[in-house]
Amino acid sequence: MRRAIYPGSFDPITLGHLDIIERSAKLFDEVIVALLVNIEKQPMFTTEERVEMIREVIPWNNVRVDTFEGLLVHYAVAQKAQFVVRGIRAISDYEYELQMALMNRRLEPSVETVFLMAGEAYSYISSRLIKEVFKLGGSIDGLVPELVAKKMSDKIG
Amino acid sequence: MRRAIYPGSFDPITLGHLDIIERSAKLFDEVIVALLVNIEKQPMFTTEERVEMIREVIPWNNVRVDTFEGLLVHYAVAQKAQFVVRGIRAISDYEYELQMALMNRRLEPSVETVFLMAGEAYSYISSRLIKEVFKLGGSIDGLVPELVAKKMSDKIG
Amino acid sequence: MRRAIYPGSFDPITLGHLDIIERSAKLFDEVIVALLVNIEKQPMFTTEERVEMIREVIPWNNVRVDTFEGLLVHYAVAQKAQFVVRGIRAISDYEYELQMALMNRRLEPSVETVFLMAGEAYSYISSRLIKEVFKLGGSIDGLVPELVAKKMSDKIG
Amino acid sequence: MRRAIYPGSFDPITLGHLDIIERSAKLFDEVIVALLVNIEKQPMFTTEERVEMIREVIPWNNVRVDTFEGLLVHYAVAQKAQFVVRGIRAISDYEYELQMALMNRRLEPSVETVFLMAGEAYSYISSRLIKEVFKLGGSIDGLVPELVAKKMSDKIG
Amino acid sequence: MRRAIYPGSFDPITLGHLDIIERSAKLFDEVIVALLVNIEKQPMFTTEERVEMIREVIPWNNVRVDTFEGLLVHYAVAQKAQFVVRGIRAISDYEYELQMALMNRRLEPSVETVFLMAGEAYSYISSRLIKEVFKLGGSIDGLVPELVAKKMSDKIG
Amino acid sequence: MRRAIYPGSFDPITLGHLDIIERSAKLFDEVIVALLVNIEKQPMFTTEERVEMIREVIPWNNVRVDTFEGLLVHYAVAQKAQFVVRGIRAISDYEYELQMALMNRRLEPSVETVFLMAGEAYSYISSRLIKEVFKLGGSIDGLVPELVAKKMSDKIG
Repeated sequence: MRRAIYPGSFDPITLGHLDIIERSAKLFDEVIVALLVNIEKQPMFTTEERVEMIREVIPWNNVRVDTFEGLLVHYAVAQKAQFVVRGIRAISDYEYELQMALMNRRLEPSVETVFLMAGEAYSYISSRLIKEVFKLGGSIDGLVPELVAKKMSDKIG
Repeated sequence: MRRAIYPGSFDPITLGHLDIIERSAKLFDEVIVALLVNIEKQPMFTTEERVEMIREVIPWNNVRVDTFEGLLVHYAVAQKAQFVVRGIRAISDYEYELQMALMNRRLEPSVETVFLMAGEAYSYISSRLIKEVFKLGGSIDGLVPELVAKKMSDKIG
Repeated sequence: MRRAIYPGSFDPITLGHLDIIERSAKLFDEVIVALLVNIEKQPMFTTEERVEMIREVIPWNNVRVDTFEGLLVHYAVAQKAQFVVRGIRAISDYEYELQMALMNRRLEPSVETVFLMAGEAYSYISSRLIKEVFKLGGSIDGLVPELVAKKMSDKIG
Repeated sequence: MRRAIYPGSFDPITLGHLDIIERSAKLFDEVIVALLVNIEKQPMFTTEERVEMIREVIPWNNVRVDTFEGLLVHYAVAQKAQFVVRGIRAISDYEYELQMALMNRRLEPSVETVFLMAGEAYSYISSRLIKEVFKLGGSIDGLVPELVAKKMSDKIG
Repeated sequence: MRRAIYPGSFDPITLGHLDIIERSAKLFDEVIVALLVNIEKQPMFTTEERVEMIREVIPWNNVRVDTFEGLLVHYAVAQKAQFVVRGIRAISDYEYELQMALMNRRLEPSVETVFLMAGEAYSYISSRLIKEVFKLGGSIDGLVPELVAKKMSDKIG
Repeated sequence: MRRAIYPGSFDPITLGHLDIIERSAKLFDEVIVALLVNIEKQPMFTTEERVEMIREVIPWNNVRVDTFEGLLVHYAVAQKAQFVVRGIRAISDYEYELQMALMNRRLEPSVETVFLMAGEAYSYISSRLIKEVFKLGGSIDGLVPELVAKKMSDKIG
């Protein structure tokens, strides 16, 4: 049984995240979308809201949502997950991804980081950029699931 | 009539900015140097001071200064500008520039981002770095217009 | 009158090239698609075949096709073109482009290199890669104009 | 059943290749090390020699060796492999990898490219560089399996 | 007499820093490890604690520790140091390093920046990342000197 | 006594090379400009012509010219040189440089690679590009020493 963690803040979940989750669901027997609880940041959505939104937009049977605190690799070991999934893109912080993956390998060699490539249409979107555009009145159609767009309107509009 | 927006914070305007503006003035019929009003940041100069400084250092007839809030592409459409100008450099955040340009194209396909290359002498200067150097007592001759250097001395010295 | 050169080998012209030409046609009064005659390389199509194919697939009135030998900036000056257009992509040899642009500026400061961003769908295609895929039996639909695909089949199939 | 192709020239196989194969063997039910038969290049070892060497140095039960011609994705489909494995490194041609992966996705969306990160010790080695060093009299201990080092001595020394 | 400055925050000093200091001690007659006093940041260790820790872990006779405020090149000139040492890594902010080196050359052409390459084992570690890992309960063995690990436990544990 | 090797093909030597040699001459007690004899390539100038040209344009007492074959680190050890100098530029093949430096360190840990930054004016020039421009009739003033420009005219013109 191959289990993978797909970690992130998901504030909010984007269609780029969903694309990676769908690809992961084919590669692994089980995928845990793991929301990092970071009490320092000021998110747009609470942890509970984010978990609920992710649950509503993922239709795959072998994907579940969870939250975690502390080191990612400790959480992976506790979950008996042998893999961590990260999305890479043409426009991404490739060096940061490698740095984290190398540190995680050092901390826990039994956990392997697997990189999947998001669809081209998602090569330049991020939760942060989507929030910025939305707050300035720009359209986010096609960047987040419809449910998320509606929740963002409820929250800010 | 081809009109272009050259957006930025210009806190303060540098000789690198002026170099791009001069090149833009040859490429377009009209160039609007558009100062983004960002109430969150703590600038060295007020919006008014920055607009005034830019006006005093741009000698080209087809260049004017303006301020804007909100989304850049909304402002461009309102100004009937078909183009946005960005400077690229050997040492620059090339991926960030592409990300913004792709998002802007998605938000408003009718507005085209045009990249011009600054002179080599300006390949490593930025408003932020110039302010840091100045505050630590370094010389900023040849990095900003003389008027700006004088205003910086008035402000901080 | 602003005239630009869009130089290349165009062996063959791709939809990525056409995308840049279309964007250039809006930015400049006149665009010259300039095919570099390089007698050393072994192209798939002769210079004449390439010129003819380009002519057939460009519908814009202010775009014309030409060939040149020697230095690009010498050709630009001879054509009274003040600009050179280059396409940039998320996945491209950005540093090579800057190197050529800086050398061209040194050789002829009056000629400005302008960078335009190709559509995302073309971010990973090149004439070379298309030819490789085609020779190995892969489909090139949506990568080159239909006329070009047909000519490639005639040439190789 | 998840089957992956690990394609390459393997002229010769390095410890960096073996590292990726070992990681792949944990991630997939079956891994096919697929040697691209490229009649144009002049390899150090013949296809048969390379296949034999790989067979001798891979101890994993779910890994086998094969050769292929033509398009990688056509071969993957023929082998009922849903995945292609590629190694990424801190020092690697990241953009080339993305370009190939995007083209392969376009040619055959059902085949997913999965990127694994080689061990740090292998971040700068390649078959080409190893051959260069060897021909100039440098030691290649710790870069290739012992069997391969011996075969290289037989071939050249 | 060739004297070099190795500047940084060293909060705390890592084995990667020590690796660069050891290499510098062979290249220069004297090396000054220069701790930048930055009153704005909230360090883990005070300036005094950091200076003391560095002193205890550097065994080389031609290396000494100092603190400085203001511009690095002003400090270098005051110390009669003709060189500044910076470590570069496979995974590093190469462009930031070049930007600072070019600005420093402009501010003081007589001071030359020399880049040395850290050992591969240190290619992904930084003081910031080590602190993050430590605070989340991860092991930092092999990333910092033992003395530093003990001081971090005293400070946080 | 600190001795450094500055290796290259120098076909021909450029002002960028000279800039690095001048900086090296201040950093080391002795610098050997070491011309790699590569019988496979077809150079513009013979080995002897290149050595002679370099000798004529380097005025520094602690710099001498030599040729070498085989592995660079073997040559460095034979010359009792503890250092290899490489120039880095804003526009350069940074990853290739790191790959070679890491391989050289593995082959001979006692030889340290030291990177110096060329002047901005040389950030985009290379022997290869200069030869291309020259052959196409472009001016190479300010890119190579006058003597070299004259020899190139004699050779080709």
